[in-house]
Amino acid sequence: MTVAEVAAAVATHVGEIAVVGLGPGPAGWLLPEAADALELATDLVGYVAYVVRVPERPGLLRHASDNRVEIDRARHAFQLALAGSRVAVVSGGDPGVFAMAAAVFEALEADPAYRSVPVRVVPGLSALQAAAARLGAPFGHDFCAISLSDNLKPWAVVLRRLAAAAEGDFVMALYNPASRARPLQIGQAFDHLRGLKSVATPVAFARAVGRPDERLHLTTLGEADASLVDMATLVIVGSSETRLVRGQGGRRWMLTPRRYGVVPSAEPQHREDVPR
Amino acid sequence: MTVAEVAAAVATHVGEIAVVGLGPGPAGWLLPEAADALELATDLVGYVAYVVRVPERPGLLRHASDNRVEIDRARHAFQLALAGSRVAVVSGGDPGVFAMAAAVFEALEADPAYRSVPVRVVPGLSALQAAAARLGAPFGHDFCAISLSDNLKPWAVVLRRLAAAAEGDFVMALYNPASRARPLQIGQAFDHLRGLKSVATPVAFARAVGRPDERLHLTTLGEADASLVDMATLVIVGSSETRLVRGQGGRRWMLTPRRYGVVPSAEPQHREDVPR
Repeated sequence: MTVAEVAAAVATHVGEIAVVGLGPGPAGWLLPEAADALELATDLVGYVAYVVRVPERPGLLRHASDNRVEIDRARHAFQLALAGSRVAVVSGGDPGVFAMAAAVFEALEADPAYRSVPVRVVPGLSALQAAAARLGAPFGHDFCAISLSDNLKPWAVVLRRLAAAAEGDFVMALYNPASRARPLQIGQAFDHLRGLKSVATPVAFARAVGRPDERLHLTTLGEADASLVDMATLVIVGSSETRLVRGQGGRRWMLTPRRYGVVPSAEPQHREDVPR
Repeated sequence: MTVAEVAAAVATHVGEIAVVGLGPGPAGWLLPEAADALELATDLVGYVAYVVRVPERPGLLRHASDNRVEIDRARHAFQLALAGSRVAVVSGGDPGVFAMAAAVFEALEADPAYRSVPVRVVPGLSALQAAAARLGAPFGHDFCAISLSDNLKPWAVVLRRLAAAAEGDFVMALYNPASRARPLQIGQAFDHLRGLKSVATPVAFARAVGRPDERLHLTTLGEADASLVDMATLVIVGSSETRLVRGQGGRRWMLTPRRYGVVPSAEPQHREDVPR
């Protein structure tokens, strides 16, 4: 056989990896492309809490991992794909936002043997979007997303980024605000931000949005109680323009308006000329 | 009638507003909840480019606006809902990310008469997620989203935010990078960032992702050619850790790894204990 023929023969036996976002939980927030990828998969790889969201069916092998590290999970997916499996690596939310996509490409970078595996990413709704939908329009203006976990970065970097986000007056979405192993960091983050922003800044705790134990809590930076934040909570910290708006039934919505500061022109004539 | 009876009678005639995200374009990226909201609607309100994405059907009135301002569109939606319509206010992408959700709540804030209208937000996939799925994992770490439009904020605020994002070493997603009326600002933004970040920083132009005219372009901050950026482009600027990874068929992926700087522990044991 020529090299090209060998390559072709190998290629026919290689499966694929789809890195699939399951969204926050409810079926209405699962993209059709993700549902299709799950339907095509022969193997599911992921953290057990996400793998169990995908219904069992004949022909689908579920490789749920508990406390194994993400990079091992990614390598496992490549090994399965090299053996011919169509692997769905599943993450909650969007795999590109603090989830499995980065781990998969880190594994690819580390081992040239994985380069024969086709990889695709199927996006999903992230927690910040689910929270925003329930709260109104907290991210109506420039915003940033910061993971408070210091498992993979020094805590000093987290503090530096909080300070930069305050300096830029971004609305902040704080992922991974607390866990059993890191119960104190969200309190430290609030303390840090209280020195940099108005204590009247609106803050929201959006817990398990879209799931049965969903809970929303509106407060301010000055009064934010870190003990109410757990591992299922997304914390939103407003900009200097963020405020609350009263709606139907007395419901309070969180709004960061589109306008910021003093601008010469009143309203644009062609604003929605852009991709979204 | 008592006040309560009047209120109840009025309430039965009030419709609702659903602020619906259509995603980037393809059917596979439209959430089921959004499809359901469009199915229930009696009236569609939105920019014409988005309204025409929703198929016509009997019983659906389409109120497409061209260059009318967003706040007028939001007021129109409330007027229709007060008259009993079930209104879907449609945006491309996620209505919460530089789109119609903020305008709807600004209209609600400005007119107490609108408080009787039930409002809900139906999220959607945003351009940054579509771009990330095609590029690999550019947002694998902390990131921010900045609109370069100075229609509703002073250009000095844009520059300040770019500087803050560079100071925090965030990956940046730049929305609204250019338009017919603002062809030069993306070039000014690149110049500004070149003074603050390495010119070797990976940059991606993700144009019309998910649509027939999709086009991806990988470059660096030093070589980024602003003339290639148009109104349908999302621009991604990496952090100091962002790099390219070679994959199947020679494809180059953009990766911002999960790890940042020097951390004491190698790998966490419980990282995915959080909402996504």
